[in-house]
Amino acid sequence: MYIFEHQIRVRYAETDQMGYVYYGNYAAYLEVARVESFRNLGLSYKKLEESGIMMPVLEYKTKYIRPAKYDDLLTIKLIMKQKPSTRILFEYEIYNEDKILLNTSETTLVFVSTSTGKPSPAPELFLKIFEQHF
Amino acid sequence: MYIFEHQIRVRYAETDQMGYVYYGNYAAYLEVARVESFRNLGLSYKKLEESGIMMPVLEYKTKYIRPAKYDDLLTIKLIMKQKPSTRILFEYEIYNEDKILLNTSETTLVFVSTSTGKPSPAPELFLKIFEQHF
Amino acid sequence: MYIFEHQIRVRYAETDQMGYVYYGNYAAYLEVARVESFRNLGLSYKKLEESGIMMPVLEYKTKYIRPAKYDDLLTIKLIMKQKPSTRILFEYEIYNEDKILLNTSETTLVFVSTSTGKPSPAPELFLKIFEQHF
Amino acid sequence: MYIFEHQIRVRYAETDQMGYVYYGNYAAYLEVARVESFRNLGLSYKKLEESGIMMPVLEYKTKYIRPAKYDDLLTIKLIMKQKPSTRILFEYEIYNEDKILLNTSETTLVFVSTSTGKPSPAPELFLKIFEQHF
Repeated sequence: MYIFEHQIRVRYAETDQMGYVYYGNYAAYLEVARVESFRNLGLSYKKLEESGIMMPVLEYKTKYIRPAKYDDLLTIKLIMKQKPSTRILFEYEIYNEDKILLNTSETTLVFVSTSTGKPSPAPELFLKIFEQHF
Repeated sequence: MYIFEHQIRVRYAETDQMGYVYYGNYAAYLEVARVESFRNLGLSYKKLEESGIMMPVLEYKTKYIRPAKYDDLLTIKLIMKQKPSTRILFEYEIYNEDKILLNTSETTLVFVSTSTGKPSPAPELFLKIFEQHF
Repeated sequence: MYIFEHQIRVRYAETDQMGYVYYGNYAAYLEVARVESFRNLGLSYKKLEESGIMMPVLEYKTKYIRPAKYDDLLTIKLIMKQKPSTRILFEYEIYNEDKILLNTSETTLVFVSTSTGKPSPAPELFLKIFEQHF
Repeated sequence: MYIFEHQIRVRYAETDQMGYVYYGNYAAYLEVARVESFRNLGLSYKKLEESGIMMPVLEYKTKYIRPAKYDDLLTIKLIMKQKPSTRILFEYEIYNEDKILLNTSETTLVFVSTSTGKPSPAPELFLKIFEQHF
């Protein structure tokens, strides 16, 4: 299992007129947590793309438990329970500063060749690094 | 059952460097389809909020089957299979101009009082209008 | 002179907790008006990019006179006063349904080669079509 | 004069299919720099709004010198040359990690009463704190 936490401050741009974070804007928070979890492991998503492999999201499920609000300092907890294969499943919990659980999500990502747009095996370096955690 | 279709043209702002619509941007397309489905029934989401009731999203599930791309003219098909009660479940299918299915989604929304932030019964006018379809 | 008008309905996603359209979101409205003005002339910005030329924005100035609000049906009036050369200057006025002027903007765009990232002369087809209006 | 610097990492969500940061997304970077500059002075924009005063943007000018790209760690340099009165003028320079200047911008903000939507004098606390820098 691999667990990683990353903090994000809610921007004004991300609120809507309910005074909540717009429900579509959590997706970017999860993306940032994924990329920072890679960086924490010594992996660069940017370099992965430059090497010809990208990781689009196949599936995304999310539950809005309590609203995130403007200027909240959110903690995104990313949890990887399964060793990645051709797909990677990430689970997430989002907490505010009072440690209240605001959101639970999961995303399934797949490795795809940038040139063909077709599924690609996971790069060996990725697998090797992730395997250390399982 | 109530079915409604609405078309949306993909904006440059909504693409990402994969050349796809960013996975978080579909949420806004679904929101637009919901609001336009209300308008089609003679209901105004704007007026609903002005009357003190808002409809935040509780749960959102989405599958990205094929990428939507820049300038695609998407058809969002909204399907309501169950009569709304305190919650409303909307299902969606997104097609491109070639009638290829790109995305399936579902959202669960709840009625909430703007002043208290607590769940509210559905407004009678809403229920009455939706009931005609079930 | 070339003038073109396009209508855009404000999405919930585009509001912020002031209850206004977030000031950064007008840029996408202007982009849509530009692209639709091209389409109206028989030009496709998508095909332009596919042919190897893209049009990034060099400069953008905007005045927020009155706020655009949720569900407003905006009219974006695009005005081209000068014949395009290596740069194109677009001016814009945004009105709400009550014909109140909400925003005035201008953007300067340049033709750039997709492969080199360097300035490129305007495609002949573009110049020919625009010239008919000057 | 008051100068403040803040770093922001470019998100995938903020890129477009040119592989650049979408031109409308810089506005949010500037907003974050403003809010963090306030926090650095012991001021909270969130609390300002809670006290009944908000600060919408009246005018925004920006020049895109070189593109910001995915995963760039940007430095937003905020410069306040004039003591704020009923309006505040902020100037900005955005640099990438190689200290290349990517963007220069300026925004004019005004103090507005949340309840009336009309201009309001600057809160005394704000003026007092800013005056120390002029």
